[in-house]
Amino acid sequence: MDAKTYAQQAFDKAGTVGQVYWVACGGSVIDLYPAHCLVEQHSPSMESGIYTAAEFTALPPARLGEHSVVVTCSHSGGTRETVEACQLAAERGATVLAMTNNAGSRIDNGQWPCWIYQWEDATPQLEKPAGFTIVFAAELMRLQDGYQGEEALVRGIGQLDGIIAAAKPRVEAELGPRFVELCQSHDFLYILGSGPTFSQTYGFAICSLMEMQWQNCSYINSAEYFHGPFECTEEGVFYFLQKTGGATRHIDERAEDFLKTHTGDLMVLDSLDYGMDAVDADVRTYLDPIFFYEMNVSLRGVRGKAFDHSPEYRRYMGKVEY
Amino acid sequence: MDAKTYAQQAFDKAGTVGQVYWVACGGSVIDLYPAHCLVEQHSPSMESGIYTAAEFTALPPARLGEHSVVVTCSHSGGTRETVEACQLAAERGATVLAMTNNAGSRIDNGQWPCWIYQWEDATPQLEKPAGFTIVFAAELMRLQDGYQGEEALVRGIGQLDGIIAAAKPRVEAELGPRFVELCQSHDFLYILGSGPTFSQTYGFAICSLMEMQWQNCSYINSAEYFHGPFECTEEGVFYFLQKTGGATRHIDERAEDFLKTHTGDLMVLDSLDYGMDAVDADVRTYLDPIFFYEMNVSLRGVRGKAFDHSPEYRRYMGKVEY
Repeated sequence: MDAKTYAQQAFDKAGTVGQVYWVACGGSVIDLYPAHCLVEQHSPSMESGIYTAAEFTALPPARLGEHSVVVTCSHSGGTRETVEACQLAAERGATVLAMTNNAGSRIDNGQWPCWIYQWEDATPQLEKPAGFTIVFAAELMRLQDGYQGEEALVRGIGQLDGIIAAAKPRVEAELGPRFVELCQSHDFLYILGSGPTFSQTYGFAICSLMEMQWQNCSYINSAEYFHGPFECTEEGVFYFLQKTGGATRHIDERAEDFLKTHTGDLMVLDSLDYGMDAVDADVRTYLDPIFFYEMNVSLRGVRGKAFDHSPEYRRYMGKVEY
Repeated sequence: MDAKTYAQQAFDKAGTVGQVYWVACGGSVIDLYPAHCLVEQHSPSMESGIYTAAEFTALPPARLGEHSVVVTCSHSGGTRETVEACQLAAERGATVLAMTNNAGSRIDNGQWPCWIYQWEDATPQLEKPAGFTIVFAAELMRLQDGYQGEEALVRGIGQLDGIIAAAKPRVEAELGPRFVELCQSHDFLYILGSGPTFSQTYGFAICSLMEMQWQNCSYINSAEYFHGPFECTEEGVFYFLQKTGGATRHIDERAEDFLKTHTGDLMVLDSLDYGMDAVDADVRTYLDPIFFYEMNVSLRGVRGKAFDHSPEYRRYMGKVEY
């Protein structure tokens, strides 16, 4: 069943949709952020909210109810907080759609529809959670609001596979060595980004670097950089800017201009230099996060090889009690 | 004019309020977060959204319009992004309420109501933006939804002044020296918190430490800690946990249990140990951020003295072009 069919099913069950809530943890909630932004910025009738699952359950929105659609994701299918969030949403009468890579797991238990996705290198972006939820959101808005941007989004997501395949070896070759060198010479870095891409700024930090490389780092929204964080900028502090080709590009550029003249240890990954210029400007804002996710994967891979630290290796996750 | 009168005025102008949007930058947007959470979790009829101002203007919510109330804050009154956000909101027909410490500044220009607040040590919390906006939000919900929690909130905010005055010297004496020592022996720290208090986790990082102490650090939502960041935890990595007495305390406790057994360099500031236990449990969730803000001020002050780095000193902000 594809994203449009799931959207039709959710629309039929919820009747008028008042709220769309996106709920998951870590890398999974990050993947839902572009779809959240799309609804937020394009639906005249639906509210959109995004939550880390434990907070959603501890402090649920008052409007969670029968006109709410709650989209969740647990890659392993066993994330306790996410399953609990699904249960709460279902108890409140909301329409739940769960997603997982693991058929038959705890979240795929028959209590709500569950979309099982593949997660292979060759899996098209349309069939992974970020692309799928963008189409789901667009279709929900088409059904309820007459939204007309869906075709451009689907076309753009279709372009991503080729763009990413071409960009990966280039980013690995052109940015990889310096990234490794700067990681070797610094204990710590700041990652900057803005707009929907900020989800992957956070993702580069908490998933690719903290989790998979034990690399200490922080993440800053470029729009907040001049409101405190820039006072830390000086020679010797390492910054990595994810420069979007989307609607908040001017925000990233303002940070870049300052960084360029205040630290030598700046790296910039501009999506427009790596193929995203081919994507319709109207939808690029929402698709850049998918591009940046894949570049995060590339860069952690290059770093992992240089540091002899496989991105697959964990010391705690799934190994010890917590 | 007090918060309730401003709320009545906004309610009269907007008619039915569909959305409350909280918009500012850095420390100012942080102060609006508890009120955002309050509406989010208690209003059956109003959506609530919070934005850093440049993103609000670049990617405004589709529902921004005549039934929206937009609350903004610029401490200096000159924050370009925040003034632009006010202008956009006003153009869309929204009801704008601005707040500033600086009467007659760019944001206090007669285009929208502007509440001028004091920002002295002796200013009661009810008359500072975080306390004011909580009451504003509660009154808006009372008018539209018949919300009944306002009295408890006002009583709790009234208690804060005494609690904070008593806590400050204790936190400075009991936590200050070790905080200084750990800052001296580490280039970097992680700050953890959850729920409405997460705003002050972020605030401790970007305002008190990055901006005012040039101390590199990162901020992690306790609810996300086990979904990536905890793989960085090991002996020698410095963590500071803001342990809330509110509804997400169990989330902080889970992180604390792991941290206690995996690093010796952990500091915990538990609001319940410093007087917040006297506040009604129902409202503590929303008032803990105000408590933690004031403790952030205390700790940066202690650090500033030890490092001979006044929290008032800036090298860039207001000094160079950006």
